[in-house]
Amino acid sequence: MKSGLNFLVAAKRCEIAALQALALTSALVNVTGRLVHGLQRERGLSNLYLGSHGARFAPERQAQIGECQSAESDLRACFDSLDTESAAVGNGARLFSRIAYVLHGLDALPGLRAQVAQHNWTARKTTDAYVRLIAGLLAVVFEAADSATDPEISRLLVARFNFMQGKEFAGQERAAGSALYACGRADANEQQRLLHLIESQERCLQVFTEFSSATLGALWAQSQPSNTLAELERMRRVLCTAAHGATLDASQSPVWFACCSLRIDRMKVVEDQLAGELLRVCECKIAAAQHDLQAFSALNPSARQEADTLSFFKEPHALIDPKGLTSNAGAPPLTPTLQGYGLHLERSILELVQEQARRLQSMADELDTVRASLNERKLVERAKGLLMAHRQLSEEEAHKTMRQMAMNQNRRLVEVAEAVLAMADVLPDRRR
Amino acid sequence: MKSGLNFLVAAKRCEIAALQALALTSALVNVTGRLVHGLQRERGLSNLYLGSHGARFAPERQAQIGECQSAESDLRACFDSLDTESAAVGNGARLFSRIAYVLHGLDALPGLRAQVAQHNWTARKTTDAYVRLIAGLLAVVFEAADSATDPEISRLLVARFNFMQGKEFAGQERAAGSALYACGRADANEQQRLLHLIESQERCLQVFTEFSSATLGALWAQSQPSNTLAELERMRRVLCTAAHGATLDASQSPVWFACCSLRIDRMKVVEDQLAGELLRVCECKIAAAQHDLQAFSALNPSARQEADTLSFFKEPHALIDPKGLTSNAGAPPLTPTLQGYGLHLERSILELVQEQARRLQSMADELDTVRASLNERKLVERAKGLLMAHRQLSEEEAHKTMRQMAMNQNRRLVEVAEAVLAMADVLPDRRR
Repeated sequence: MKSGLNFLVAAKRCEIAALQALALTSALVNVTGRLVHGLQRERGLSNLYLGSHGARFAPERQAQIGECQSAESDLRACFDSLDTESAAVGNGARLFSRIAYVLHGLDALPGLRAQVAQHNWTARKTTDAYVRLIAGLLAVVFEAADSATDPEISRLLVARFNFMQGKEFAGQERAAGSALYACGRADANEQQRLLHLIESQERCLQVFTEFSSATLGALWAQSQPSNTLAELERMRRVLCTAAHGATLDASQSPVWFACCSLRIDRMKVVEDQLAGELLRVCECKIAAAQHDLQAFSALNPSARQEADTLSFFKEPHALIDPKGLTSNAGAPPLTPTLQGYGLHLERSILELVQEQARRLQSMADELDTVRASLNERKLVERAKGLLMAHRQLSEEEAHKTMRQMAMNQNRRLVEVAEAVLAMADVLPDRRR
Repeated sequence: MKSGLNFLVAAKRCEIAALQALALTSALVNVTGRLVHGLQRERGLSNLYLGSHGARFAPERQAQIGECQSAESDLRACFDSLDTESAAVGNGARLFSRIAYVLHGLDALPGLRAQVAQHNWTARKTTDAYVRLIAGLLAVVFEAADSATDPEISRLLVARFNFMQGKEFAGQERAAGSALYACGRADANEQQRLLHLIESQERCLQVFTEFSSATLGALWAQSQPSNTLAELERMRRVLCTAAHGATLDASQSPVWFACCSLRIDRMKVVEDQLAGELLRVCECKIAAAQHDLQAFSALNPSARQEADTLSFFKEPHALIDPKGLTSNAGAPPLTPTLQGYGLHLERSILELVQEQARRLQSMADELDTVRASLNERKLVERAKGLLMAHRQLSEEEAHKTMRQMAMNQNRRLVEVAEAVLAMADVLPDRRR
């Protein structure tokens, strides 16, 4: 018959398994990040190639495709290594379903490249295709962040997702600016789109700063030298404020592209650091948990338990962790567990059980706080779905509608989403 | 190399594994419910036995102990059957840690019974001991409800937990009333405690009604015949409104006990129905998911995928489920999946992947809504922990303090909890 000690050990083992799954997911996120970065460059080069009617950038684009193929094959290997048979991955259904979608996108990638090579597709259509594929890849990262059961790792994954999403907005900003230069004239619609990409980007980077470590925040701040930033902001101002229909200085196009590219490449450096920190935290937590597991396993159940069974009813024991309750302002310490825990003799198994329950509870509380930040994205997605159903819009049209509402009302996208969802009950569902 | 179809299948398999784990957990909850019910009776009989100084209720108590021992051994067998080696149980760490705590309580139960048999403990101390053990068992049920990944099952588990918690408040109400009769005089403190138990009970039953099916709600309403209810309400009024220090009619004590017991026994009938519905829904969902899995497995990946890979970029496909978004008012339909899904020929794998992603997303959204109701309990527990830390209170004192604040301010306990947590940042942590 299993004892309390058995379940104390089993709980610890579950924690370790969840941490190991997180370490795997983090590795998956890293490879995904590499492919996203490659595809962002490929998208940029494809645009330049199409813009020059094939006269320029063909070799650069070809080289970039090679890099992407290598990252893709690494990612596919990573997918292959996932244990899809045991169904033991937490949140597996959603993660796997996102991966299935991504694989379809990757299967379609050679077709997309052929369309570009043959100049069949416009720059805009090409950009949209890459945007869709990258969005699918980012959805994988999002599920990874949403599945974390450890608050500190969840925090880093949320930072990670937001940074990657911010970087993607930066990539789209580059494309949108290039498109404006390519058409040669300021266009109010495109300018507003550019503005929104900048704002969405800032918002993501803000969440990143909030959730990542101080070190990484500082690294990000330093990675953007003020002269580059000033140049970018100057060009943003020129592009966004030109009167509708005014001529744009085409000679600035390569400057814009180089400036944006520099920013994005620097972002990649921060992202890689973030990736390293994530893996390091996972390893550190796994080691600490395994240390506890060994300590638990060394306990002798019968000898210690007989001491005083009635103690269960005696002390006024709390099943809640009184510490850590006010700590959700800062990140929790890296070594959360019993460390130097050789005091078996002075502590009953019951005390260990209570301590474990308290710790798990306060971890769950902390996790709720961290996850709240993911809700913003969920709200926007949900509102989009609602608009699609009620107004028979495509996803892109729905997104555009909400963006337009946000611009008109000078509100953030998430506020518009909340307003849309609040209308849900009064709108008739046309599909029914 | 794994294809999109492989991951479509893997996601479905994960769903099935999660549903099977839920079916197991539901079975565990059922056995837990049986032991809780038995311990509630044992607590009542132990009180009567102690109240009569051992003159009466000895055989009834002994018989009830026998029943509890049988339920306990079933529960221990159920715990033993849990797969603690594979660590594959979702939310396993928290569930196992609660079970470890319960096992310590069960180990201490014979000691508690010996104290009662020897009249060493007062009725109040005995009641508190049973309350603590039952709270531990209910925490297992709570974790089960909190771990559900399917919104409909989560809904039923939330209903279940609240019903069981409400029933426990009813049991404590019975004990508190009996204690008042036993002491012979009205006591303002005890009367307020009684009032709060009644209010907490009502609140739990309200959540139950909100989350369970209409059938079960009706069953609950019918299970309380109006004459019994009227009698209970009359006795509640007499007990709660007697002037402090006034003599209570001791002859009413057995009537009170019988009236409360009838209510609790009727509750058990509803609880058993709820248990049945839970298992039925689990089975039904597993069957539907397995049906989908078979349909997926019958698909031929290569043949279908070659048709038009560029379709990934073509249609404006939504990754959000437009239906079901406005449906969180009522319970979702029982047969959520592809049913009659023999139309392979007309649907591409990509469409299936998108449909799956949409469905999983809308399930996750629905789940968020259901889980919000569990937050109330979490808030109260968290506020309790905060008070314990700041004022160096025991758990019981902290709970009493909050109850007192609620009574003084005529607010609900959860509102007091929110207020306490809002103070968190301004209070110094004395433990540091």
